Amino acid sequence: MKRGLFITFEGADGCGKTTQMKLLAEYLEKQGIPYLLTREPGGKGLGEKVREILLNYDGEVSDRCESFLFLADRAQNIDIIVTPAVEEGKIVLCDRHIDSTVAYQGYGRGLDINRINMLNDIATNGKKPDLTFVFDIDVETSMKRVGQEKDRMESAGREFHNRVRNGYLELAKQEPQRIKVIDATKSIDEIHKEVIKIFATLND
Amino acid sequence: MKRGLFITFEGADGCGKTTQMKLLAEYLEKQGIPYLLTREPGGKGLGEKVREILLNYDGEVSDRCESFLFLADRAQNIDIIVTPAVEEGKIVLCDRHIDSTVAYQGYGRGLDINRINMLNDIATNGKKPDLTFVFDIDVETSMKRVGQEKDRMESAGREFHNRVRNGYLELAKQEPQRIKVIDATKSIDEIHKEVIKIFATLND
Repeated sequence: MKRGLFITFEGADGCGKTTQMKLLAEYLEKQGIPYLLTREPGGKGLGEKVREILLNYDGEVSDRCESFLFLADRAQNIDIIVTPAVEEGKIVLCDRHIDSTVAYQGYGRGLDINRINMLNDIATNGKKPDLTFVFDIDVETSMKRVGQEKDRMESAGREFHNRVRNGYLELAKQEPQRIKVIDATKSIDEIHKEVIKIFATLND
Repeated sequence: MKRGLFITFEGADGCGKTTQMKLLAEYLEKQGIPYLLTREPGGKGLGEKVREILLNYDGEVSDRCESFLFLADRAQNIDIIVTPAVEEGKIVLCDRHIDSTVAYQGYGRGLDINRINMLNDIATNGKKPDLTFVFDIDVETSMKRVGQEKDRMESAGREFHNRVRNGYLELAKQEPQRIKVIDATKSIDEIHKEVIKIFATLND
């Protein structure tokens, strides 16, 4: 059986990546192409338990602990969900993956990017996605879109979100073959068409 | 206030490390010396949640995921439990720590020891215990002691447990100042006296 593909969806909160992932899934459904949806943190099973800890633990969680929990979730997602499905020939669509960690922890918070890459390599067994969409959006627009969550985003600071955005763009420059930047201020339908177009090139 | 100490207890299941840790705690209690007990995996709070996942999750957990969960638990234990208590002047006693990972995953399972050391360094922020006791015991005796758990130990194999034991001894050779090997076939009381004697040298 033909090997499937691993496609990741990246960008700021409010950039529309989850919507676009679902639209691509609907497209695949209509085409009769087998697919699977997952996300980080919190793919099915153990990932949900880790996500629960990350989002709901009410005591103090150290930064280093949090990083390792994200990596545990990533390793589990790759080993138990993504890799077997890709080997079965499925198109696996994943909401956030390695580039989120580099953009948010590395470019955003200023943690050592070489170390992050090394840890990502261990968590993924050195395998990168076949294709990554970065939905690029300015901080103002993404803040407007997230609405009631605006406070949380603002508390992290506009400067932080600008660094995250620039981090994604920098990554796309470094790996233009894998990472495709899409202008996320366009309409949902326009963006979906662009996603399909790029997706189609993978099968050429 | 004088900085406290971080002391770890290592060795095979059935070597008596937990018993000896509690006896040292009783000794400290009598001496009026402030102390704290913790363990890996599963210090208080978030550690308990991670331990619960590690021990009770009934689905498949990938090896890499498991390693990162151990590291998350270790980072949380160091940052939230151990370091603050040591800074308050307490003697922190910890049941298993970095050397368990090197002995079990490295020497036992054959994973890359340099990588394990590097990950341990990240999880602990590069801080090693002030003192580590390794309770050394032959595989036969430890299997007799663990009784009903014998099956689980045997299923991992005698060869595996021999490699773990030799791993601990190798570590003690590499860091003789920090790691003290105690013959764990002696009586509980004899061992306790030896522990106290070694502990006393730290305050000289």
